[in-house]
Amino acid sequence: MKARTVYLDNNATTPIHPEVKKTMIEAMDIYGNASSVHSFGRKARRSIEQARTSISDFIGATPDEVIFMGSGSEANNTVLNIFTCRCFSCAVSADGKCKEIITSKVEHPCVLRTSECILEKGTPVKYVGSDEYGRVDVEQLSKMISKNTGLVSIMMANNETGTIMDIKRIAAIAHANGALMHTDAVQAVGKIPVDVRDLGVDFLTFSGHKLYGPKGVGGLYVRKGAVFCPMIHGGHQEQGRRAGTENTIGIVGMGKAAEAMKHEMPADVKKIKTLRDKLKEGIKRSVSDIKFNGHPEECLPGTLNVSFEGCEGESILLYMDLEGIAASTGSACASGSLDPSHVLLAMGLGPEVAHGSIRFSFGRENTEEDVDYVLGKLPGIIERVRKMSTAYTGKGK
Amino acid sequence: MKARTVYLDNNATTPIHPEVKKTMIEAMDIYGNASSVHSFGRKARRSIEQARTSISDFIGATPDEVIFMGSGSEANNTVLNIFTCRCFSCAVSADGKCKEIITSKVEHPCVLRTSECILEKGTPVKYVGSDEYGRVDVEQLSKMISKNTGLVSIMMANNETGTIMDIKRIAAIAHANGALMHTDAVQAVGKIPVDVRDLGVDFLTFSGHKLYGPKGVGGLYVRKGAVFCPMIHGGHQEQGRRAGTENTIGIVGMGKAAEAMKHEMPADVKKIKTLRDKLKEGIKRSVSDIKFNGHPEECLPGTLNVSFEGCEGESILLYMDLEGIAASTGSACASGSLDPSHVLLAMGLGPEVAHGSIRFSFGRENTEEDVDYVLGKLPGIIERVRKMSTAYTGKGK
Repeated sequence: MKARTVYLDNNATTPIHPEVKKTMIEAMDIYGNASSVHSFGRKARRSIEQARTSISDFIGATPDEVIFMGSGSEANNTVLNIFTCRCFSCAVSADGKCKEIITSKVEHPCVLRTSECILEKGTPVKYVGSDEYGRVDVEQLSKMISKNTGLVSIMMANNETGTIMDIKRIAAIAHANGALMHTDAVQAVGKIPVDVRDLGVDFLTFSGHKLYGPKGVGGLYVRKGAVFCPMIHGGHQEQGRRAGTENTIGIVGMGKAAEAMKHEMPADVKKIKTLRDKLKEGIKRSVSDIKFNGHPEECLPGTLNVSFEGCEGESILLYMDLEGIAASTGSACASGSLDPSHVLLAMGLGPEVAHGSIRFSFGRENTEEDVDYVLGKLPGIIERVRKMSTAYTGKGK
Repeated sequence: MKARTVYLDNNATTPIHPEVKKTMIEAMDIYGNASSVHSFGRKARRSIEQARTSISDFIGATPDEVIFMGSGSEANNTVLNIFTCRCFSCAVSADGKCKEIITSKVEHPCVLRTSECILEKGTPVKYVGSDEYGRVDVEQLSKMISKNTGLVSIMMANNETGTIMDIKRIAAIAHANGALMHTDAVQAVGKIPVDVRDLGVDFLTFSGHKLYGPKGVGGLYVRKGAVFCPMIHGGHQEQGRRAGTENTIGIVGMGKAAEAMKHEMPADVKKIKTLRDKLKEGIKRSVSDIKFNGHPEECLPGTLNVSFEGCEGESILLYMDLEGIAASTGSACASGSLDPSHVLLAMGLGPEVAHGSIRFSFGRENTEEDVDYVLGKLPGIIERVRKMSTAYTGKGK
């Protein structure tokens, strides 16, 4: 029998905030179609526009710069697809060819897969590398970028390591070369301050379920005046920028989450960082032959990525799960794949080290007791996994 | 003060079924990411797969033929976009050119707008007309279709008039010519029996909020063996056919709605049809110079589309709204546009008649009292609107 459950997979998804839950339950009775002109429709419209204001307030945008979508993946796909659309001059070079996109090797699968897909459609794609902490190499980017670059798309914070990129500097480089700047800020919004004007980005992706809101809703900031081309065509919803009846319950939930995070984030961050650091110190003390991945300072407050020498990450997860502890080996979106993490490989880790890496990610509901519980179980689990492993030759065996 | 509110806009969207609401509230605590391997993730996975079984049972498919998406619009866009993807042989003719799509003039805006968009990308698109009832002209289709046709996309039931198309016959014609068959069944699923095998379709679109489930979730049936190309790329979700963290709450809600409708639809349909017919007879008796639009028999049980001579539909809606009655002039997705309905124009109605048309659409929560209330208010409203109208010269003035 499990003694308790400890959820340390908040980068995969977060539990719904109690206030969000309450708001969503109330929104279940706002059933009009927000596009309808009658009172039922207007009520839905009002709640959606209130949520749009909450979200735009939270990221420093104006409401009309926020487009609601079905997920962060949809938002990222939409942005990259603009640059396959020949109708916009900014997607086409002077010689009539499609401008290139520069992205990085440490992006989320939805950016990497879409890049491959748009490459097939004729848009050139280049990948900038990263340093040993997984920070995108800005010097390399400066050398790669040219007047043929239409878009630079670099994530704000990495989902696996928590490493935070220098988006402000990258955006400045993009603009200096006449390119537009997109950042996938799905892991950043709700965890660290995000201000679209301060960052100087043209597009920014966010997602409800990473900030204690519901799954199935996300969105895109599009700077007023930036080119745009919808991916889902149809009705006039979202000012003709994303068709489909508005997900009232989800949007209202995400809006409430942004509102709650605006007030609670500073205190949450402090608590979460303390817990993460406690776990880090505890692992350091109790387990040998480990390596912490990601930037030591420029990192999300709640992410801890650690490689356990001579271990299969999947085995560690399994044993932790038996003890009620939820963590992950990397992106939930890459689950099911037995390949080592592309992020850790890009940082220079060997495949065997990458295979033995675990991501612990904290959220606002975690407690000191959670950390104590994990520290009580983890050393034994690692010992057990290493005993079964032929790859481990360290002193812990 | 409003005496009561009467919601007769169920084709735009339906109220959430009480059982669905209950299930969704419970699902708010299933917060794991369904792609995660730990117990939190597995719990989410189980609820999603249970919903997939409910949906597939409801439409006669197998679970692996059902892909969850963010809306019916997304599903329709996805299907049409397959036929711009040159990687599939079925999207390309023997001469290397992209095969054509045949669709109709009475489709939902999300099919019509996407058709225009894929035409720009190089896929030829042809539009088949309809008869006076808005039924797609099958004879004309038979003459238009050829070996160069890759896809036939015809809606199952029209959202504005309720007219039901002969999808079974159209699918047979498509297949006889080597084309695939898609039907947008958003207005049909939950209102009339839908069986993908009986219809013989390759793709079928459905949406949660049209069958007493939540907004922001829909899906696509894709026959096992049919070509497919994702529109949203990224993670492995939905067997790599639609990336993005699964909308657990929405999916579970839609699954429950399908389960409820499977049992309740027969009785609902009977009641809804009686109410619709009562309103129709009442309008016939109490208002002159009217015309009912749509097929008299092959029609959704709850849809009543009626043109009031010499009236602006928007004015009628406004006055009805003041009395607490919600209806619409056509598709909610086309709201905001002052153009007359493309569906009614395609049926041969003049723009002035089309402008004066109102859609009443019934749902399972409507009552006899609702109809009595509308019949008590509507004649006076029409009289008032006609008195202000210079276009009306009929005897009612």
